[in-house]
Amino acid sequence: MSEDLEQALKVERHPERAVKDRDVALAILGEGLICHVGFVAAGRPWVIPTMYARDGEVLYLHGSPASRMLTGLAGGIEVSVTVTLLDGLVLARSVFSHSMNYRSVVIVGTAREIVDPDAKLAAMRALVEHVLPGRWDEARQPNSKEMATTLVLALPLDHLSTKVRTGPPSDGAADRSLPVWAGEIPLTLTFGTPRADALVADPVLPGSVIAQTARGVRG
Amino acid sequence: MSEDLEQALKVERHPERAVKDRDVALAILGEGLICHVGFVAAGRPWVIPTMYARDGEVLYLHGSPASRMLTGLAGGIEVSVTVTLLDGLVLARSVFSHSMNYRSVVIVGTAREIVDPDAKLAAMRALVEHVLPGRWDEARQPNSKEMATTLVLALPLDHLSTKVRTGPPSDGAADRSLPVWAGEIPLTLTFGTPRADALVADPVLPGSVIAQTARGVRG
Repeated sequence: MSEDLEQALKVERHPERAVKDRDVALAILGEGLICHVGFVAAGRPWVIPTMYARDGEVLYLHGSPASRMLTGLAGGIEVSVTVTLLDGLVLARSVFSHSMNYRSVVIVGTAREIVDPDAKLAAMRALVEHVLPGRWDEARQPNSKEMATTLVLALPLDHLSTKVRTGPPSDGAADRSLPVWAGEIPLTLTFGTPRADALVADPVLPGSVIAQTARGVRG
Repeated sequence: MSEDLEQALKVERHPERAVKDRDVALAILGEGLICHVGFVAAGRPWVIPTMYARDGEVLYLHGSPASRMLTGLAGGIEVSVTVTLLDGLVLARSVFSHSMNYRSVVIVGTAREIVDPDAKLAAMRALVEHVLPGRWDEARQPNSKEMATTLVLALPLDHLSTKVRTGPPSDGAADRSLPVWAGEIPLTLTFGTPRADALVADPVLPGSVIAQTARGVRG
């Protein structure tokens, strides 16, 4: 099974975009805000966006959005989790060579529900801290009822595939002299100005928000 | 089958986020740049990011990235295609009520390869024009070899589910007076300054690039 998985994850299309460096994969997982989780239910595929966080060699998934479809969860569920960062449009001289600059990680494996209360609390903390470092300690902690209605899954990072495309277009030699503008248009996910809830009495922004919006962009 | 699909697509988790208005779904599909395609191969789920475009009641998918896994393609392949737009972080007073503002469309159905050359060319045009309107006519058109090595799939928009979350956090009544900052941090996908390829002789930007970067953001 593991060998099959490794074989299936081998990047055959655009092999030049395959990245073996695990640090690149971890950086992509660190920068992404959401993942897309694929699973099989009732014999067909489903893809749902959700939150995630990495903790060492494990990826935590906020499982609630898909909980209704996650039958037989106790034994674990086969998933494919993909995190994609879109870095730009790539305009070539030929229509065919148009592309996008991106970084993506595909992880496959068996996700299992975290049942132990301490482990579950740690995973929930990781999920919140992944999205906005420092936020966990600023907000009210979860009570037992909230803990019970939250589903968190753990997926080992044993089988993953990383693809990265950067740089200018790759037109064929015969096209390079065509009088067509070619290049890149960068894309970034940008944080805007925080808007306080109407009921907030103290307008001073908390440390987590100041730190994040000072950076302006994620990453 | 169709009834089962409709039932499975019913939003049971956060039903208040379900949107029945088809125009909302079409607007989300219009604004997104990439989708995540889920399919089953070798008995397990796979999720791959790729380009798409909508043409009336059909979604075109650039199938090449996943072509190796798409076995038995002639008969069509069951897919789940998800487009997610991330609009902001939602900070509540309680950890539990933290969320994200987003708009997503999940489409399920059978994707089939487009074989007819004219239909395939039209689909390829739609894919390029979706990403950057006006670009198709600026670049060199595909030749027969390029056409043959491009795989395009068509997925009918018969079964889809739309979810939208907007606005401030939804803390419970007991939490609303807590002295914790709560609100939203908007997120936008922003276009940066176009960078010409080193070989470009004429620095004048083409109409497609000017129109897109003048808007600054996608949407």
